Amino acid sequence: MNIEQFVAQSEGEWKSMRSGHSLAFKQFDEILSVLKITLLNENDVEVLNTLEDYKELHLNPISPFKIEWKAESNWKGNKESDLSSGSSILIPSCSSEKHGIILRTLGYAEKIKAISKYSFLSDDTLVLSTEYNETSAEERIWFISKNVRCRSSVIRSKDSKAILQTSHASEIRTIKQDIKINE
Amino acid sequence: MNIEQFVAQSEGEWKSMRSGHSLAFKQFDEILSVLKITLLNENDVEVLNTLEDYKELHLNPISPFKIEWKAESNWKGNKESDLSSGSSILIPSCSSEKHGIILRTLGYAEKIKAISKYSFLSDDTLVLSTEYNETSAEERIWFISKNVRCRSSVIRSKDSKAILQTSHASEIRTIKQDIKINE
Repeated sequence: MNIEQFVAQSEGEWKSMRSGHSLAFKQFDEILSVLKITLLNENDVEVLNTLEDYKELHLNPISPFKIEWKAESNWKGNKESDLSSGSSILIPSCSSEKHGIILRTLGYAEKIKAISKYSFLSDDTLVLSTEYNETSAEERIWFISKNVRCRSSVIRSKDSKAILQTSHASEIRTIKQDIKINE
Repeated sequence: MNIEQFVAQSEGEWKSMRSGHSLAFKQFDEILSVLKITLLNENDVEVLNTLEDYKELHLNPISPFKIEWKAESNWKGNKESDLSSGSSILIPSCSSEKHGIILRTLGYAEKIKAISKYSFLSDDTLVLSTEYNETSAEERIWFISKNVRCRSSVIRSKDSKAILQTSHASEIRTIKQDIKINE
């Protein structure tokens, strides 16, 4: 598996079931959401604008893509729904077959732009490591079938190294491509 | 990492937060439980009895251990608590540094005795694969710090190959050893 193959396999619309564990408080949260992953052209204006911000890195961009999400949170003990949505452009750049970085216009643990390091484990699990302002995050994504992915994450405090949260998402592809997320 | 080191690192008492996702029904479940992992002597009577059942396999047993659990389920939408507890003897037998099998007196996906194949990924994640009567299961266990493990699982129907459930547990070690689970 390389990053180009991984992104190609990820294209489409996914229903996500995500559970978060806040370790210090023994608190669970659950989120149902829809993700849409779309491959972008390397000449896409958002891709070119993002690359312009990092031109000192002399990147070798490959398979840029966009993730859009629309989530309905359901916090345990709190029946209010929290609808949120957003999108991020991701631009991989490989340094070898199994390693590289991914530029993100919006990060995972903190909603700021970020650079993730990526690598593949021996079973083709993609591992992303990201340093944010206050936290660091590790995300692992692996396919358990052609149309089901698992995604697990660990968020740590950068100061104390304490583990703030772990999470697990099951993502089921419902539509291969070309469907708008709001339909 | 080899299986002996992995078992040694796992000894002690752990608080577990576990989330399960039933994919077909988009149903979440949450379980808080206590696990206790105790190394056993290779001459322990339960170990010898279990090995006797599998003597045709000519095993090379190493680091046998016992897992005890006591769980309090909290199903979403159902405020009743479901207290359950149990224990299983596990006996690893390695065929190489990174591969082998583990005998289990009580399985994970089905409560029957089982033989799991194990291997280690390139980042020391332990992967267990088990064929039961009706289902097959893959479990992954990895340390995210000295005292915190993540465990993720996938359960498939053997007939249809459909993915029935995924789960994720965050396990936090509270006590290194020598404490009874009921204390």
